[in-house]
Amino acid sequence: MSRFLVDYLKSLEEYVPGEQINKKVIKLNTNESPFPPSPKIIDTLKNFNYQTLRLYPSPTLEELKKVISINYNVNENMIYIGNGSDEVLAFIFMAYFQNHKVLFPNITYGFYKVYANLYKANYKEIPLNNLEINFNDYNQEGHIIFPNPNAPTGVSISKKSIEELIKNNPNKLIVIDEAYQDFDTESVVALTMKYSNLIVVKTTSKSRGLAGLRLGYAIANNELIKDLEKVKFSFHPYNINQLAIPITITSFLDKDYFKDTTNKIVEIREWFKKELNKRDFELTDSKANFVFVKSKKLNAEDIYLKLKDRNILVRYFNKKEINNYLRITIGSKSDMEILLKNLDEIGA
Amino acid sequence: MSRFLVDYLKSLEEYVPGEQINKKVIKLNTNESPFPPSPKIIDTLKNFNYQTLRLYPSPTLEELKKVISINYNVNENMIYIGNGSDEVLAFIFMAYFQNHKVLFPNITYGFYKVYANLYKANYKEIPLNNLEINFNDYNQEGHIIFPNPNAPTGVSISKKSIEELIKNNPNKLIVIDEAYQDFDTESVVALTMKYSNLIVVKTTSKSRGLAGLRLGYAIANNELIKDLEKVKFSFHPYNINQLAIPITITSFLDKDYFKDTTNKIVEIREWFKKELNKRDFELTDSKANFVFVKSKKLNAEDIYLKLKDRNILVRYFNKKEINNYLRITIGSKSDMEILLKNLDEIGA
Repeated sequence: MSRFLVDYLKSLEEYVPGEQINKKVIKLNTNESPFPPSPKIIDTLKNFNYQTLRLYPSPTLEELKKVISINYNVNENMIYIGNGSDEVLAFIFMAYFQNHKVLFPNITYGFYKVYANLYKANYKEIPLNNLEINFNDYNQEGHIIFPNPNAPTGVSISKKSIEELIKNNPNKLIVIDEAYQDFDTESVVALTMKYSNLIVVKTTSKSRGLAGLRLGYAIANNELIKDLEKVKFSFHPYNINQLAIPITITSFLDKDYFKDTTNKIVEIREWFKKELNKRDFELTDSKANFVFVKSKKLNAEDIYLKLKDRNILVRYFNKKEINNYLRITIGSKSDMEILLKNLDEIGA
Repeated sequence: MSRFLVDYLKSLEEYVPGEQINKKVIKLNTNESPFPPSPKIIDTLKNFNYQTLRLYPSPTLEELKKVISINYNVNENMIYIGNGSDEVLAFIFMAYFQNHKVLFPNITYGFYKVYANLYKANYKEIPLNNLEINFNDYNQEGHIIFPNPNAPTGVSISKKSIEELIKNNPNKLIVIDEAYQDFDTESVVALTMKYSNLIVVKTTSKSRGLAGLRLGYAIANNELIKDLEKVKFSFHPYNINQLAIPITITSFLDKDYFKDTTNKIVEIREWFKKELNKRDFELTDSKANFVFVKSKKLNAEDIYLKLKDRNILVRYFNKKEINNYLRITIGSKSDMEILLKNLDEIGA
């Protein structure tokens, strides 16, 4: 740390992403898809003229916004596109929560707390109730942000309940992070056409197998989108790589592949949950591309370390409330079979 | 603008990038290179396995940092990589200038003022002296940032003078934005090995013909780099697109192409300056890939609009101090010949 860093940042605790290891491992720790993105991207890359890289990308990204808006059946001016949904979330914290009150679950995506500190939000972490979000606990001042399904628990909330929350709190901004929604949770995107206090954040990193592309987006009414565009044009107008545009478009147009791969992940997840239930594990009813599990026999850190020794990475959180749980990404069926075999061998 | 946007952002004036027009124009308004990036990138794209897009990019970017550090003959831990140099600059303002004093020229890259407002810096715009930066005017409290060569004037400062400034101000952070340095300005990168109060910011957008890639970087001592990494890990750890990594590496390894294309741009610039001098233009001694010119016959806005009618875009700044000047990007020789012909025709 240099002597020039502004004071409050000196003590800021940054986000710790899941390990990225170079050697060959079974990687079930960062919720990437086991499937590659649409194979039609091979042609997109083949047809990409490298010479266009000399030009700045469109700062307004109309073409991509159009494709995304058609996919979700919302207006074109209701889409904001960011360099990964992390950037979208960072801009939301900057635009709305900076020096303001915001509420989020105490067990949730770890980055919310980091952003809250980065933007000096007056935040409050609301304890989960039996690993579930209870909206009664949010009857207090403060905007609200949470993922649906929540991470790392995987527990999801119905569209109807969320609509109640939005309706009952017209003066609070409600941000729903749908990073993991495509794996069988009801989306609330359609509600953005109806409510002016809702932002839905989405990503291509999980269900579209495009974590390497860095492309996330927000859907909300145009007034909110204009705020986010204002922040973007005050930060970096050209935030999206030229290549990411046609690749994302190809992904959205290949609807069959998207349905097929997300369905397969849901299938593997449900099978894997049954397998864990046959063994001595407690688990939430995850609707995400991961499960959140606790062994009745071995503690989570032990399992994490033993699996790591065997070249299998899962996510362990060194956090009091959940340090008995592991978050395990749904990989390919064969990866999950190898994992089960190893869990049996280590006596988990 | 929504009712939720935090107050001070409501009045923030965002950056206005040069127009991006879809129809076929001669585009001399955003300082892109007239040359495509290294043609070796064709193979890089051919060899890129689209399946790896399912994985997050490395958050630490070691491989790319190594190539860049070798190129500049500095240590590997002295490189920070961002999503365009705009992101690097935004993080520098967040890390060091937030609520602190910072000085920059009144005529310079327009984004500094936007960042200063975004991060509530206590900034002061120091008037240029005859379109040149005079370090005597910076003998006052405040960190210092400026581009070398300056934009949009193109005027550059010697390494020796900048070293004096750094030496004489050990308690100020000095940020030198070398976006346009590769066109015949002395770099101060080597000084980062010697001084702990210097950050040099660079980009692949101009001299490497990779504006569409969004890749910028900072070079500084490791303590400063660690600050920027801390901000990045509090904002978005995976800030670089998977494809941008091998493409940038290819660009850095193709040293001949880089030298050849930057030399050509310098050659065209010097020829174009002579042509303008033959006519009724005043111009600075630009060392960038653009010129900064004033016609003795027509006012700048008229020229800008007349050229636009003729499908030639140049940059006009609606700012009191420089609204008699145009910034014209150095395009291909034939583009510049067409421009000269049109300037003659409109009587500029």
